[in-house]
Amino acid sequence: MDKTARSQCVISNVLEILGDKWTLLVIRDLFFFDKHEFKEFLASPESIATNVLTDRLKKLIHNQIISEIPHPETRTRKLYFLTQKGKDLLPILGSMAHWGSKHLPDLEAMQPLYERLRTEPKKVQSEINARIEKWEREYLQ
Amino acid sequence: MDKTARSQCVISNVLEILGDKWTLLVIRDLFFFDKHEFKEFLASPESIATNVLTDRLKKLIHNQIISEIPHPETRTRKLYFLTQKGKDLLPILGSMAHWGSKHLPDLEAMQPLYERLRTEPKKVQSEINARIEKWEREYLQ
Repeated sequence: MDKTARSQCVISNVLEILGDKWTLLVIRDLFFFDKHEFKEFLASPESIATNVLTDRLKKLIHNQIISEIPHPETRTRKLYFLTQKGKDLLPILGSMAHWGSKHLPDLEAMQPLYERLRTEPKKVQSEINARIEKWEREYLQ
Repeated sequence: MDKTARSQCVISNVLEILGDKWTLLVIRDLFFFDKHEFKEFLASPESIATNVLTDRLKKLIHNQIISEIPHPETRTRKLYFLTQKGKDLLPILGSMAHWGSKHLPDLEAMQPLYERLRTEPKKVQSEINARIEKWEREYLQ
């Protein structure tokens, strides 16, 4: 057992799961950019490396934050989606966007979505939920 | 310029600053455990390495999330404290604690503070602010 695992601090344990920027960027892509495939995550502007993405998807599945199904068109590809535990992460991304909108103001104009997440969080949340539910109706049922 | 810096995404840029568990553990120690000294951060149960702590403190100062003053008792030591930009991170830690309380339930009983952060966030926030202000009156004025 490594030393970190012994901490009984909730935040410490949350950071064991989320405390890595690539993990949270994949979660961002699932929430805001409607991405569900390996190649779609790879195409994000941050240029995640293939091996890092493979590792983080595995870790997210292990932690039950995302789940996977075979792609309906070809079983060699997979579709990834947020579980309920994953969907519950939205307030963390929302609070990060809120902080960023305030303290990294040169980016703000580029991000109408994050600006809306700050000014009308409930509305954005229900739009995101509606999109996720639409996806789930199409692929999970 | 590295690839990541080119992203115009607010969350991506926030994660460039915060997306590392050690960084957020130092911020946690400042908020919740009234720690202000290098040796106090070192003593946290996660056992941060000296060189990692040095690096993360430097990065936090560079990003104006914390600041430092000489220790009033000895100028060979320093006191670290949250700037306003750093204090504005509390909702991010709060949303992490909230998520952790729900999804890592075996830790919940250990963390009355985090439980309270979930159930009475305003009250906890004003207690934390009061403690921070008390510290600032003692050391910064």
